Amino acid sequence: MHARHLPASTLVAALFATGLAAHAMEPLPAKVPVPADNPITASKVELGKELYFDPRLSVDGTVSCNSCHNVMAGGTDNRPVSVGVGGKKGSRSAPTVWNSAYLTAQFWDGRAPTLEEQAKGPILNPVEMGMPSADVVVARIKGIPGYAEEFKSVFGGKDPVTYDNIAKAIATYERTLVTRNSPFDRYMHGDKHALSAQAQRGMKLVEQIGCTACHMGPNFAGPTALPMGQGFYQKFPLNTDNDYVKKYHLEDDLGRYQVTKNDNDKHMWRVPTWRNVALNAPYFHNGSVPTLDEAVRVMARTQLNTTLTDAQVADIVTFLNSLTGEFPKQTLPRLPATTGSSPVADK
Amino acid sequence: MHARHLPASTLVAALFATGLAAHAMEPLPAKVPVPADNPITASKVELGKELYFDPRLSVDGTVSCNSCHNVMAGGTDNRPVSVGVGGKKGSRSAPTVWNSAYLTAQFWDGRAPTLEEQAKGPILNPVEMGMPSADVVVARIKGIPGYAEEFKSVFGGKDPVTYDNIAKAIATYERTLVTRNSPFDRYMHGDKHALSAQAQRGMKLVEQIGCTACHMGPNFAGPTALPMGQGFYQKFPLNTDNDYVKKYHLEDDLGRYQVTKNDNDKHMWRVPTWRNVALNAPYFHNGSVPTLDEAVRVMARTQLNTTLTDAQVADIVTFLNSLTGEFPKQTLPRLPATTGSSPVADK
Repeated sequence: MHARHLPASTLVAALFATGLAAHAMEPLPAKVPVPADNPITASKVELGKELYFDPRLSVDGTVSCNSCHNVMAGGTDNRPVSVGVGGKKGSRSAPTVWNSAYLTAQFWDGRAPTLEEQAKGPILNPVEMGMPSADVVVARIKGIPGYAEEFKSVFGGKDPVTYDNIAKAIATYERTLVTRNSPFDRYMHGDKHALSAQAQRGMKLVEQIGCTACHMGPNFAGPTALPMGQGFYQKFPLNTDNDYVKKYHLEDDLGRYQVTKNDNDKHMWRVPTWRNVALNAPYFHNGSVPTLDEAVRVMARTQLNTTLTDAQVADIVTFLNSLTGEFPKQTLPRLPATTGSSPVADK
Repeated sequence: MHARHLPASTLVAALFATGLAAHAMEPLPAKVPVPADNPITASKVELGKELYFDPRLSVDGTVSCNSCHNVMAGGTDNRPVSVGVGGKKGSRSAPTVWNSAYLTAQFWDGRAPTLEEQAKGPILNPVEMGMPSADVVVARIKGIPGYAEEFKSVFGGKDPVTYDNIAKAIATYERTLVTRNSPFDRYMHGDKHALSAQAQRGMKLVEQIGCTACHMGPNFAGPTALPMGQGFYQKFPLNTDNDYVKKYHLEDDLGRYQVTKNDNDKHMWRVPTWRNVALNAPYFHNGSVPTLDEAVRVMARTQLNTTLTDAQVADIVTFLNSLTGEFPKQTLPRLPATTGSSPVADK
């Protein structure tokens, strides 16, 4: 039996019992997890940043990773669902790229175990970046002389421009996208004035009513102790006896079931991060809820069978705002030039 | 009679006669022209940069100024024609934003006299950013608290968020987008090793065959002495007795005539810059020519009735590559947050 098939509450109880989840709320660790086969180097970060911002990774040269996961904002596009090539729309709201390095599984349904695997998805998704195959992506990137040189310098070897290496570079850049030093982190590091009385009330409340059974750990997205690739899932909506479920179409998408076809995974979702959540309206996998206070009400009712007072909602929202961190300064990348002819055909 | 209605060749002869165009080729002046009513300040540049990169200036939150005029690249989208909201396509290729501060008229047809006026166009163009009205733009920006504060700090007054001020901020950022210190500029400043022998041959050739009758001045886009708002136009194609005209659909668009409805303006175009031209394939107002060498052949034949040898084309292309300048380092802007609810409605 795999732990991920247990209800999250059972898993949490087990983790607490083993001491793995002794601290429900934690500041961000100083270092992000890094796979052994993809160490972070400065030149790889720079290459990854270029690829992340390069719309030439999409079939018609209009959509980059950053189009939907905007690092200049909270790491999303602030839309209910994203718009890909040709104005096509996906069915789920773009999750934030910020602090995604700390997640133990990627995508709303956790179907990618690593940032590397995640990066390979949207490029080939017909409603996102729409490239027809990994080979076409590789051929296009190889055809841009600046990229060919950079890949050689970063990865070495005879054939450095591969789809795997494209994903490795992008993932490496993403591992630098960490927002530290939020008021919450400063508070946890001993600055007791970093949180207002209201934020502190909200902080207590999310523990008391049970939000942090799932929104725990440094990213408020599950326990730290899970190995990379092991997602932390919860059923949503858990209680369906309320108007929110219909109003916000919360049961339309079967969630992780779409990946595993296991009945136990129906409506199971990777617990999303709370960090910078105040910047990333609209909310939930379908982006159906436009405001954070409504999202708090919905979650309390559907997951914890709790109806919050307006004052409680305000306290929790104030606490959630304290999870907005500092965004590291970055330089704009320079995209290697399209020399002489455009690699992007117009149709 | 307005000078802009004269054929460019007549105008050039007149300018040479008055000494206004004594130097056909010039390095970029140290300072960009700045309108008296819109002085450059650091905070206005930063605000303008945020707006320039902000897709919330488009109706569905998917297209920013930078989507088509990509400052991370050569200032264009490297596409034949740009793609706006809903996958809609325009009819002309995006001109580069780099060094546009030195142009005395904006757009391919020169219909905007200033960068401020230019900035107001695409936001409301239904096939570009698609906002329904200036009022809707202003209301959306006002609704983003961070912007409201910044406009107050930058522009002051009782009602600082106006469409005029949005355009002023964007234009101010664009005035910082100057690429200095190209090999050509270094050569003109005395470094005789900055250009290869081949580039120097190309440089002589473009004067000898007559390219620099129009591609003159520091931006290779017309004489410096023209007052702001006074565009420098040339008919294109001038000679229509060749296969290129049909092959590349060079006569399909009536150019400036579409603005003035004056028969003399049929197929008149603002002379585009040569700076960074090697980065900005495909070429011409309709983006019909994919490579720089072919663009050189077409121009020589249609404008100067000259058929170049392959060696001559290679020399000219090498010179044109020497006009790729240094791109100033910039920090990524932080876009003011959408707090609690998205201002961009999904349809």
